[in-house]
Amino acid sequence: MLMKPLQMHINFKTGEFNPNDRTNIRKLSDMKGMFSDSRAEQQILAKEDPIIYSFRERVLPEESGHLQLAVTSINPGRIGQEYFMTKGHYHQRPDTSEVYLGLEGEGWLLMQTEKGDFASLIINPGVLAYIPAYWGHRMVNTGSTPFVFFAVYPGDAGHNYGDIERTGFVRILVEQDGRPSLLNNPRWKK
Amino acid sequence: MLMKPLQMHINFKTGEFNPNDRTNIRKLSDMKGMFSDSRAEQQILAKEDPIIYSFRERVLPEESGHLQLAVTSINPGRIGQEYFMTKGHYHQRPDTSEVYLGLEGEGWLLMQTEKGDFASLIINPGVLAYIPAYWGHRMVNTGSTPFVFFAVYPGDAGHNYGDIERTGFVRILVEQDGRPSLLNNPRWKK
Repeated sequence: MLMKPLQMHINFKTGEFNPNDRTNIRKLSDMKGMFSDSRAEQQILAKEDPIIYSFRERVLPEESGHLQLAVTSINPGRIGQEYFMTKGHYHQRPDTSEVYLGLEGEGWLLMQTEKGDFASLIINPGVLAYIPAYWGHRMVNTGSTPFVFFAVYPGDAGHNYGDIERTGFVRILVEQDGRPSLLNNPRWKK
Repeated sequence: MLMKPLQMHINFKTGEFNPNDRTNIRKLSDMKGMFSDSRAEQQILAKEDPIIYSFRERVLPEESGHLQLAVTSINPGRIGQEYFMTKGHYHQRPDTSEVYLGLEGEGWLLMQTEKGDFASLIINPGVLAYIPAYWGHRMVNTGSTPFVFFAVYPGDAGHNYGDIERTGFVRILVEQDGRPSLLNNPRWKK
């Protein structure tokens, strides 16, 4: 059956994306063990459960030929010295790419393969990143305001969050002397 | 072989997109017979050959799983009463979608199927259009400044310009009483 065209609106400043089919909120309690400083994580969780990021999706058929659309806003903040970030994921169909377009604020895109290759890009408004097949990806807010970006990926890409939950990322992005600094992740495992 | 991540930058105001692999310029002489007022077309071409639009592409592998990226800027203007527009195309692999994101200026997105279904959307900055499989698409600048938008589509979608060159669009968008108005296209043929 013929699908009708869809119209949505993105607020580049706030990341509002309407109409959307699903608004996902990721609090610190949803990301237990993903930040490297587990004592800082526990201290924060004893008092509050901050929203790390939220993303709004337009849900389209999970089929080749379709595209999936999402707008994410990562709050500013840190757990210990490590900046607020997304969980990060590979694609279930690993030979699929993804596109990120920076809309507001500033952050870093961290990418890695399952073999341990690593790459990073600085993203701010107007920067477009092409994440090719096989690269897992995570966004990190290194600024003092919300970091908003738009994502497009193939309809049948799917998400694989589990592998990154298990292995962590090759490197972590922390504040040192007031600036973002990439450190090897002692807990990374292939 | 593992492809490396790519970084580009889009100037939302001007449509500059760098680095790009291909800048395409479409002058009126490249679109002969596509505007409905052929006398106006001839009168303009006798004096000058205006640039109707340009688009910059990042060329990626034409394969499923990849995505293609382009930024287009349509100049303001009309041929007779009909606004400057893109040639319009279907996809060579017709069961593929496309996403347009308005960045600057204002225009209309015209869509049609080969059977003659028609749909239109008004696009301005922040408006995101999802063009599903089987819908041919053309963008039209209805404003007085350049109309800039970003496009993403599947790597293996391909372009089919020929069918629209042959049939035209079901409707044309003309200025009437200072406003955009959709008219049936007398030259449309299924």
